[in-house]
Amino acid sequence: MSNPYDYAKTNQERFLEEYQELLRIRTISTQPQHADDVAAAAEWLRAMMLRIGMERAEVILLPEGRCPLVLGEWHGAGEDAPTILIYCHYDVQPAEVADGWHTEPFEPTIKEDRLYCRGAVDSKLHVMSNLKAVEAWLAADEKPKVNIKVVLEGEEESGSENINAFVAQQPERLAANIAMVSDGAILAPDQPSLTYGLRGIAALELHVSAPVSDLHSGHWGGSVHNPIQALTEILAQLHDENGAVTVPGFYDDVVPVTATDRALLEQVEPFLQAEWDDVVGAPAVWGEAEYILPERLGARPTLEINGIHGGYTGAGMKTVLPARAFAKITCRLVPRQKPAQIIQSVVDHIRSIAPETVAVDIRPSEPGAEAVLLDVESLAMTAAAEAYTHAWGVEPVFERSGGSVPICFECMKVADEVVIMSYGLKSGRAHGPNENIYLQNFYNGIQATIKFIEVVGSRGN
Amino acid sequence: MSNPYDYAKTNQERFLEEYQELLRIRTISTQPQHADDVAAAAEWLRAMMLRIGMERAEVILLPEGRCPLVLGEWHGAGEDAPTILIYCHYDVQPAEVADGWHTEPFEPTIKEDRLYCRGAVDSKLHVMSNLKAVEAWLAADEKPKVNIKVVLEGEEESGSENINAFVAQQPERLAANIAMVSDGAILAPDQPSLTYGLRGIAALELHVSAPVSDLHSGHWGGSVHNPIQALTEILAQLHDENGAVTVPGFYDDVVPVTATDRALLEQVEPFLQAEWDDVVGAPAVWGEAEYILPERLGARPTLEINGIHGGYTGAGMKTVLPARAFAKITCRLVPRQKPAQIIQSVVDHIRSIAPETVAVDIRPSEPGAEAVLLDVESLAMTAAAEAYTHAWGVEPVFERSGGSVPICFECMKVADEVVIMSYGLKSGRAHGPNENIYLQNFYNGIQATIKFIEVVGSRGN
Repeated sequence: MSNPYDYAKTNQERFLEEYQELLRIRTISTQPQHADDVAAAAEWLRAMMLRIGMERAEVILLPEGRCPLVLGEWHGAGEDAPTILIYCHYDVQPAEVADGWHTEPFEPTIKEDRLYCRGAVDSKLHVMSNLKAVEAWLAADEKPKVNIKVVLEGEEESGSENINAFVAQQPERLAANIAMVSDGAILAPDQPSLTYGLRGIAALELHVSAPVSDLHSGHWGGSVHNPIQALTEILAQLHDENGAVTVPGFYDDVVPVTATDRALLEQVEPFLQAEWDDVVGAPAVWGEAEYILPERLGARPTLEINGIHGGYTGAGMKTVLPARAFAKITCRLVPRQKPAQIIQSVVDHIRSIAPETVAVDIRPSEPGAEAVLLDVESLAMTAAAEAYTHAWGVEPVFERSGGSVPICFECMKVADEVVIMSYGLKSGRAHGPNENIYLQNFYNGIQATIKFIEVVGSRGN
Repeated sequence: MSNPYDYAKTNQERFLEEYQELLRIRTISTQPQHADDVAAAAEWLRAMMLRIGMERAEVILLPEGRCPLVLGEWHGAGEDAPTILIYCHYDVQPAEVADGWHTEPFEPTIKEDRLYCRGAVDSKLHVMSNLKAVEAWLAADEKPKVNIKVVLEGEEESGSENINAFVAQQPERLAANIAMVSDGAILAPDQPSLTYGLRGIAALELHVSAPVSDLHSGHWGGSVHNPIQALTEILAQLHDENGAVTVPGFYDDVVPVTATDRALLEQVEPFLQAEWDDVVGAPAVWGEAEYILPERLGARPTLEINGIHGGYTGAGMKTVLPARAFAKITCRLVPRQKPAQIIQSVVDHIRSIAPETVAVDIRPSEPGAEAVLLDVESLAMTAAAEAYTHAWGVEPVFERSGGSVPICFECMKVADEVVIMSYGLKSGRAHGPNENIYLQNFYNGIQATIKFIEVVGSRGN
């Protein structure tokens, strides 16, 4: 009676309700006070997996992790059929009204054709698009010709220790022919895109201190190297005038941009520039002059200061000479750069330029993740292109994303092929205030995943 | 039956109780939520002035001000006698346990020979030393031979608009032969010192912004001049390698250090270096190499970053490329430097070096105050030296303080001579956590003010 495409369309409104239910759970993995929310969401997702017809569903938290993953399995296609592993994450970044939200960050709010909520695009959109596509297949008369595993991570925004340990210890649990990593953004509402490269990440904190405690800046100013000043002097030396990172060795392993890359990425440039004008809106584009915008964002590494604090920053004046100041730094990495090696280069460089008038404490804060470069001719990639064309009615273009999806690297350990399928938009303000999606992207995403499952199944193992 | 010196000694314990009562009132003038506390303290002080025998006492708040001053008067010495104006301030800097306090910041705590509390040294020590000296005189058989005005300011830590307006509009109310500004610190518990120079102050905030809202640092990093980075690049250019300020014109009006200054200040150097080792304890002394420590702290201007903030600074990682970042800056000024002109020079310089890839907003945040240089041979200064010698049993040395007491400049408008009498210690951690005094300094301060009133009275008008 029913095929999965029609089923999804018929149940669209209910799917939207369920998506909003998940959005209301404050799954902020970076903040320990939300551990119960993360656990509640994991249980909610496990229950849903069983409800939609998956054969097994499990909440898994290893001793190494803090936030559980949820693993659902359906093996109804039989041993000879290929297996797809669908990966998404259900944890989100922190969000507070004070950051500039126009609505309550954890109350999904629909205005015209968009839905606003923390996690709307990053990445509960993907969690729900994929689970609802699986539901549509399992509810249909004709069952999928692929076995399906769905793994939902709970600490993508805060280190991924749990899933990394799981892959290391029990790789067979996630083994698949194709891993579909569902996260990130396409170029425009009516222009899907396939990401064939992702940047990696390496993170550290830099703490500078000098006096033993906060001092009166009148009494002692002029005799102490102010830790804020020393910190700014160090940070200001990490880029040259062209926007390039000055850390020795930083670019040693960087794979050069090829003529093929340039040809693919030039197609993306106008979309990205339009998006930049809309979303970024800074006084001017900045960065390495010899690279076009999509290359700066996808094919070149960066060193970014994500946060800085020192001294008194409340209302009014406090004439303090502070004891300490610190900054949070992340580097986005491109293929062949090793996170540990980059961290070491940055640490060595900072130590070499830090003045002796202050004490410097550098704390690598995350294990980091390597960058990924995928084969645009693979079976998985061509199936994904077909899926987008079906759902959007437009062929996708190919791009390299500036974001990091560390799990891609892990997926390569358990799957023959990896493909990234994104249903969000760059204008969706992931990580910022007023994160949002076009509702149509949710519906298109469901259709795309249904098609992807069909195409992979039709080609056999 | 009684003389003021004995009266003060007999009532020492009660005086200490009253001092602690005042310390418990959270007179934080920079924080609007403490306006009621400031008002309550003003009323408390007015009542005390009347109780100790002053003829008039008034709480005064002009439309220009936010926190009232309290003015007490005693004219019993008659029209032909000289008039002393005693100035102190009763407002304090913010303080929170999280800043590193070992006790509740607003609960006075006595340990061995010290008392710990916000405001203990800056400047409720001076408020109470002077009020209790006046009480001792007015309770004594022989009345003072000087008329006495006591003015207590409530917004010294936050701009002094109220008292500045009062001096401008009703200068006769504070008119005196000698103004005694009671604030600041002496060199050591057993080494009083007289400050003949004070630095002025000029303050501003620097705000840098680029994208219209916080962005995902992976998606957009490499194409936007990160406002934190741009801010550090600007701030790092404000000093050269020798610690000198690079702002063009900054030193144009600075009065050079004379041979007399060097001779006086060399006597202070060992005390200051010992204090530096104890209180500052940074890895190394920093600053302009051609000046000795007391010169760097008292005779040379500075540009100090008091606070900086941008992006995400909470627990864990947030890969944000922030929309904005800001810093709070104060300059300490030396004689002849004009606050408005220095602010303009800093503003011009920052505008000239700010990159076009970000937007810069510079907000001068205070009217500022000029530096002061006093005559060490004046009647007021020699009377003060006699008062210290009486109370401490040691002759004072002469120094130039790094702090700013803007009111000195105002006092020069209403008094023939100005003298600064400090009873606190530099090690008292004014503006920092664990602010404290030696109890003996409180008792010595009362004796010194009693003596000062006697000496000035004995010399006539």
